[in-house]
Amino acid sequence: MSTLNRSIKLVSRPQGMPTYENFELVTNSLPTINEGELLIRTIYLSVDPYMRGRMNGVKTYVDPFQLNEVLIGGVVGEVVESKNNDFKTGEIVEGRLGWSDFSVSNGSNIRKIDPTLAPISTSLGVVGMPGLTAYFGLLDIGKAKEGETVVISGAAGAVGMVAGQIAKIKGCRVIGIAGSEEKVNYLSNQLGFDQTINYKTENVLDALKAACPSGVDIYFDNVGGEISDAVIKLINYKARIIVCGQISQYNNEQIETGPRIQGQLIQRSALMQGFIVSDYADRFGEGYRQLGKWVKEGRLQYRENVVDGLENAPDAFIGLFRGDNIGKQLVRVSEE
Amino acid sequence: MSTLNRSIKLVSRPQGMPTYENFELVTNSLPTINEGELLIRTIYLSVDPYMRGRMNGVKTYVDPFQLNEVLIGGVVGEVVESKNNDFKTGEIVEGRLGWSDFSVSNGSNIRKIDPTLAPISTSLGVVGMPGLTAYFGLLDIGKAKEGETVVISGAAGAVGMVAGQIAKIKGCRVIGIAGSEEKVNYLSNQLGFDQTINYKTENVLDALKAACPSGVDIYFDNVGGEISDAVIKLINYKARIIVCGQISQYNNEQIETGPRIQGQLIQRSALMQGFIVSDYADRFGEGYRQLGKWVKEGRLQYRENVVDGLENAPDAFIGLFRGDNIGKQLVRVSEE
Repeated sequence: MSTLNRSIKLVSRPQGMPTYENFELVTNSLPTINEGELLIRTIYLSVDPYMRGRMNGVKTYVDPFQLNEVLIGGVVGEVVESKNNDFKTGEIVEGRLGWSDFSVSNGSNIRKIDPTLAPISTSLGVVGMPGLTAYFGLLDIGKAKEGETVVISGAAGAVGMVAGQIAKIKGCRVIGIAGSEEKVNYLSNQLGFDQTINYKTENVLDALKAACPSGVDIYFDNVGGEISDAVIKLINYKARIIVCGQISQYNNEQIETGPRIQGQLIQRSALMQGFIVSDYADRFGEGYRQLGKWVKEGRLQYRENVVDGLENAPDAFIGLFRGDNIGKQLVRVSEE
Repeated sequence: MSTLNRSIKLVSRPQGMPTYENFELVTNSLPTINEGELLIRTIYLSVDPYMRGRMNGVKTYVDPFQLNEVLIGGVVGEVVESKNNDFKTGEIVEGRLGWSDFSVSNGSNIRKIDPTLAPISTSLGVVGMPGLTAYFGLLDIGKAKEGETVVISGAAGAVGMVAGQIAKIKGCRVIGIAGSEEKVNYLSNQLGFDQTINYKTENVLDALKAACPSGVDIYFDNVGGEISDAVIKLINYKARIIVCGQISQYNNEQIETGPRIQGQLIQRSALMQGFIVSDYADRFGEGYRQLGKWVKEGRLQYRENVVDGLENAPDAFIGLFRGDNIGKQLVRVSEE
């Protein structure tokens, strides 16, 4: 085993779109563990849009990343050394850990993954945080019911893809909005979305009017901005707008202005609810079980976009904002 | 009894602020009633901000007013003639009726009022539609809990005043925003609001920061616009924003732009819910009983601003947008 440990630190705060200069790859010696701790070899790490918010120096729902510290994100890895009775060498774990070859944990921030149930990478995606986000957003906030019309922005992303498939499982009519022909074709042909809209080549409002002749009952929003302006024009009485992400806004240096929406919410007795997945921490078990069951039954498909090498994590992260990925964006740091 | 019946019609759609030219007082002969109908002498009629929306020719949650038709609003009056077995001459009724000296009803759009319980005018205010709006908004959407901080815009209006007092009954800390010294003094001195802000003379954001050192748990919004921008900056985790009215926006000829709020809703896992009182039609009985009980116990005060004469109803309506009224704005059309 290597005696070195590479890590990626945030060395400056992005102004607008993140750049490579905001990140630095550093090499240190392998950390040693104390009684009660364990050492984890990173196999996959997850890059997620929400991390952009933590790169600003502002306290929001989570503390900001500190400058010159190792970035923290979703990681799945193998226990390679343990002085903790709850974890054995060779076990697979998932949790919020450093963007590093190896991480130390005391066991409180990780969960065990059974590698016989599904590929371990899915613990960062369809049966991980993005899957739970889709599950609780669509079902607990959205209360999706059979026959309803569901519009999803960022539909080819890790969360949107799961949300759309759960909506199909629940008998909804699902319209996905995404930003390339490859993405919308995948949603239509592979995942069974009823309609798709390529927002880069189509007029979103016109396309939505055509795709939603009975209006929009649920809007699962990962994107925000002008796409949301268009969807909100078409909401039905008692519509639910699930505000999950706003990737179109994360790199703005100032809050963008747009049409005020409160009047439309009144006219339609509509709900708009922001959330983050940890709001549902006490129900994660339920979520993992249901998502795992749907995956096993073949009712919930997933797709991953894997790049190799810890050193490529910054590019994979920046790629989220270029719209590079279809499905879950992962970085493979070492072999399974 | 008069053999004539005066009415107010909408003769043109307001562009921006309504003007007298949008209304016309017409005189017809007293209507006759058929079997199953009753004739009602209007005592009070209610002018309400939501009516502005119906004056545009656009279908929203209610159909628009038709041009050259008599306006329809809340009315309390006396049955002066009845060919309906459910109603007797001399009874007091409340319902959506014409802006007229007399109206005909078949009984389906009115309810009986017991004049021994409270002044009959309260059936249009604190124990009427505005009271119910405050009750269901604050308690069903807002889920107000003891110790929470509640901010109310349009706090000296018919709805805001009730919402603030219910919040006090529930043990909340209540901050009211209104537009004159007379209004804020009334809220502080008479209704026991904890803090008030005169948005015409104070910087709302600075005043809110001082008044809400622990942030805002519930925002009961009757006004919208820049006041809401300021309040939304200060919302807490799991805040509830009750979008009841947007009086600052009703006379706009185009939808105003403002800072996008979805990012703040995500950061705070906050809810924003639009509604209209009829969403709760199946629970009106509960609302009337509770509001009536609080009024009787002296825990819920009310204030009315009464102008005399049907011919003055347009001015009273326009006055809502000038901020003339403290509490419920009524027009007395005939004596009780």
